Amino acid sequence: MPELVQAILQGDRRALARSITLVENDTAQGQQTLDALFPKTGKAHVVGITGASGAGKSSLVNCLVDILIQQDPKLQVAVIAVDPTSPFSGGSVLGDRIRMRAIAENPNVFIRSMASRGALGGLAHNTQAVSLVLDAAGYDFILVETVGAGQSEVEIASLAHSVLVVEAPGLGDDIQAAKAGIMEIADILVLNKADKADVDAAEMALRSMLAMGYPSTKTDGSVWVPPILRTVATDGKGVAEVVNAIQAHAEFLHSTGTWQQRDQTRLRAFLHGLLERKRNQEWQQFIQKEEFKQVLKKIYIHELSPYAAVEQLQSISFLKNSH
Amino acid sequence: MPELVQAILQGDRRALARSITLVENDTAQGQQTLDALFPKTGKAHVVGITGASGAGKSSLVNCLVDILIQQDPKLQVAVIAVDPTSPFSGGSVLGDRIRMRAIAENPNVFIRSMASRGALGGLAHNTQAVSLVLDAAGYDFILVETVGAGQSEVEIASLAHSVLVVEAPGLGDDIQAAKAGIMEIADILVLNKADKADVDAAEMALRSMLAMGYPSTKTDGSVWVPPILRTVATDGKGVAEVVNAIQAHAEFLHSTGTWQQRDQTRLRAFLHGLLERKRNQEWQQFIQKEEFKQVLKKIYIHELSPYAAVEQLQSISFLKNSH
Repeated sequence: MPELVQAILQGDRRALARSITLVENDTAQGQQTLDALFPKTGKAHVVGITGASGAGKSSLVNCLVDILIQQDPKLQVAVIAVDPTSPFSGGSVLGDRIRMRAIAENPNVFIRSMASRGALGGLAHNTQAVSLVLDAAGYDFILVETVGAGQSEVEIASLAHSVLVVEAPGLGDDIQAAKAGIMEIADILVLNKADKADVDAAEMALRSMLAMGYPSTKTDGSVWVPPILRTVATDGKGVAEVVNAIQAHAEFLHSTGTWQQRDQTRLRAFLHGLLERKRNQEWQQFIQKEEFKQVLKKIYIHELSPYAAVEQLQSISFLKNSH
Repeated sequence: MPELVQAILQGDRRALARSITLVENDTAQGQQTLDALFPKTGKAHVVGITGASGAGKSSLVNCLVDILIQQDPKLQVAVIAVDPTSPFSGGSVLGDRIRMRAIAENPNVFIRSMASRGALGGLAHNTQAVSLVLDAAGYDFILVETVGAGQSEVEIASLAHSVLVVEAPGLGDDIQAAKAGIMEIADILVLNKADKADVDAAEMALRSMLAMGYPSTKTDGSVWVPPILRTVATDGKGVAEVVNAIQAHAEFLHSTGTWQQRDQTRLRAFLHGLLERKRNQEWQQFIQKEEFKQVLKKIYIHELSPYAAVEQLQSISFLKNSH
């Protein structure tokens, strides 16, 4: 087993930070490290935290970490902030930054900010890979904070065991647009900034959207109905209840056997993402080939039909299947 | 040369209709027919007509056909309506239907409605294929009417030589949403229902959006700046000017050599679409393979890392490149 891997398993934070960089940058050494660490994964509970910008996700994450480590001094908690505007990456108000520095200095807490890549699926692979490294390193909870915008909402559902959707009153159209797609992936709904005047209207809107998705509220425990929890994350108000809800959701997943399912979904999504990237790379190589360019020329002069071209390309390209 | 192909080239409308059905249904005979017809393609000018539902696209198309065949009795015009709600498919007000029946009975006009497929890119291949058949059959203008909703806006740009975007005052949010993506692909902007009260405001909004895309309006003819033309398609008002603009745009494309470029873009998009479909089919086969399932199982029990799995799959799968 490589030295780096052993160091990570022994709790060496610098080794952990270095290997995350290697994994994030998609290096061969990073992949080898993850290959070696992979059998040690499968214990962490990954919590995705998403929602519109301005909903107060970072303050909430900060508070969640605080409460988790206070409740159990042996617990190890990691944060992955995939958001350029996240206070974890430096772009914050002073008060937040000071509090975050305090938790970041706790030896049981590991904080990492990641750039969200532009490439399709880029967020997913890298975040998956980093969360697996943290899982192997022994972190019990991994909180992944992503900005709730388009693509990443769906991605978060494929990389987390529990998904928190954070809303806040008065965010305008953004929140409306986000709700439609986001409600389907939420396990817990957090209505932050609950000290604002229009919080009742916001909760009513959330409740009616939720009611559409969960028309019959069975109370026999066989169905998880996302709770709506009010918080004022800057004061810590209501955040203990969010921690309880996360723990209740984790227990629900384990007791119903769905934890395993979610874990498999995550791993399958990761594999699919890697294969798709490979396919796209091969596609890019393929269209640079001389044979492909020649075929295209024949099409351009209306000599070879595109259908016939596909047949012709099959014999010279990756399209040729070995089975 | 097959009988069907000869019949099409001799102007047999029933043979044409039959071959379009074969092509549309993606049959082997349809592909063979197109293969044989393909060398006869490359003359038709394909005009895409898109815009929000309710903007009056079908009435406009109807009028355009009317004027084109009146201007030149030798001209052959085809219409492909890719829209389930299009009057060409039957879902219209009575007046429209009667007028459309009249033009449909003209021997120089061929009208075809197509179902818009749900599958990604499905619209594009099939419409491309059908427009090539019509091109080979000798149609000078092929008007493709699509409902302006998401995906199809981008697709229309890759299958037409000239793109008409139809707007109308008072369509509300739909029109706003459509504008952003749609302005980039417009060669001609038609402001239909120009007898409505709020037409000036609608034109001003269009002009300011247009100004962003074309900040310097060179008048030396090297740049095509989309004109904004007002019409009342139900009365035929202003539609002759739209016909003139289409002809001017066609001339512009030919004189600047960009017609060829657009034609090549269309054909390349068609080929890429076909190859992508093939790749997706192979992918579906691939993930059904026993080897793939075995690999997935090893990942699920956290034994084999996804990175290592990709390496392993490369030796047993389509990922293996022959080059």
